[in-house]
Amino acid sequence: MSYRKGYKAELELVHLLSKRGFLAIRSPRSGRIGLPAPDVIAIRRGKILAFECKFIGRAFKVPSSELEQLKQWERIGGAECYIAWKYPRRGWRFISLKHVLKRKGNLRKVDWSGGRTLDELTA
Amino acid sequence: MSYRKGYKAELELVHLLSKRGFLAIRSPRSGRIGLPAPDVIAIRRGKILAFECKFIGRAFKVPSSELEQLKQWERIGGAECYIAWKYPRRGWRFISLKHVLKRKGNLRKVDWSGGRTLDELTA
Repeated sequence: MSYRKGYKAELELVHLLSKRGFLAIRSPRSGRIGLPAPDVIAIRRGKILAFECKFIGRAFKVPSSELEQLKQWERIGGAECYIAWKYPRRGWRFISLKHVLKRKGNLRKVDWSGGRTLDELTA
Repeated sequence: MSYRKGYKAELELVHLLSKRGFLAIRSPRSGRIGLPAPDVIAIRRGKILAFECKFIGRAFKVPSSELEQLKQWERIGGAECYIAWKYPRRGWRFISLKHVLKRKGNLRKVDWSGGRTLDELTA
């Protein structure tokens, strides 16, 4: 995934979450130096969501460094953590960290299909 | 406050909070376009802190736009909100949004002195 496409997907997710009443921000690159930070964080009434974003149209493996980051956000931050996967021409699905860990980071189309929709996530 | 000095102060705050066990991030400039985002956000076990950072050695007025942003983070996000004021050669104090609003955004040295220390904030 190119940096530019990834950036656009992150920004799209931020706006989608904002429209659903969340306060959402992208985490800056500089904030990632040595400190764990997901791509996008969203907060509503004390509920914290943390996302690593993917914009990709095939099976892929989530780097273990990203899984470790999400685990920290879940454990230390108390966040609900997801891989936010935008499949080209099919849209967003949200795969829970628990599911991703069960798959050892290997995600296929069937995992996308089984993920939560934006409506389910923000209900 | 120059952009560069402000940036350095924000990054310092991120690192200070990280050392105290918080997950902390700077909010990126791009994330500020049209969407409310404080300078720094920190999370620990579901507790959310939001900060506007100041690095300044005299009385100043917090722009009302920044106060509005913090109010949104408090109301929608459920965050504890502060002006994080680094006074040159004296260090950080954290002034609660409630106090800042009582002062109508006008902060003086006495408000810095009355603010919380990092220890108090992260206890």
